[in-house]
Amino acid sequence: MDIADVTDRRTFDDDSFQKSNLFETDRMFSDVYCFEPGQSQTPHTHENADKVYYVLDGAGTFVIDGAEHTLEEGNAIIAAAGEEHGVRNDSDERLRTLVFMAWTTE
Amino acid sequence: MDIADVTDRRTFDDDSFQKSNLFETDRMFSDVYCFEPGQSQTPHTHENADKVYYVLDGAGTFVIDGAEHTLEEGNAIIAAAGEEHGVRNDSDERLRTLVFMAWTTE
Repeated sequence: MDIADVTDRRTFDDDSFQKSNLFETDRMFSDVYCFEPGQSQTPHTHENADKVYYVLDGAGTFVIDGAEHTLEEGNAIIAAAGEEHGVRNDSDERLRTLVFMAWTTE
Repeated sequence: MDIADVTDRRTFDDDSFQKSNLFETDRMFSDVYCFEPGQSQTPHTHENADKVYYVLDGAGTFVIDGAEHTLEEGNAIIAAAGEEHGVRNDSDERLRTLVFMAWTTE
């Protein structure tokens, strides 16, 4: 058992977006990602893992297999295994997302 | 790819707490759970799955291996595989939680 206060996870950095880990096990992790305006997560692909983003604060552009989706606070999106995915904060406000990733275990 | 507006997931029912599925794959699901005051999820155990709860609205009592933890909006808790876990809404307000569960794949 472990508890996290997600409202406290605000680790912004001028150099790049930041990840703050909440939980991790053998089969999943949960993080908070913090993006200053203009910061992004480069699109990438996990062949054997699904990732869910949930927007905590602000708005972001989520790029899934090249298609762009603007999500606001309270929206969620999944990038299933094999789908290229990235995030851009094109807004003038800070963006925070919850992230959950689950991967295939052996 | 799929998108969900979590703010719209408010499927309360007087008979019991309700689950509203957001996403599901071969290795994980994501739901919203909606509890009226007094409703609960009976403690149970998954031997090969980890579950994360994130409180969207309200407050709840999360019981992990018999220990009670009161969480409010913006708090998260993990019940790792093998840990008995349940939820009670002891408050006078509605409780909504995000839920993420990841399980061992074969």
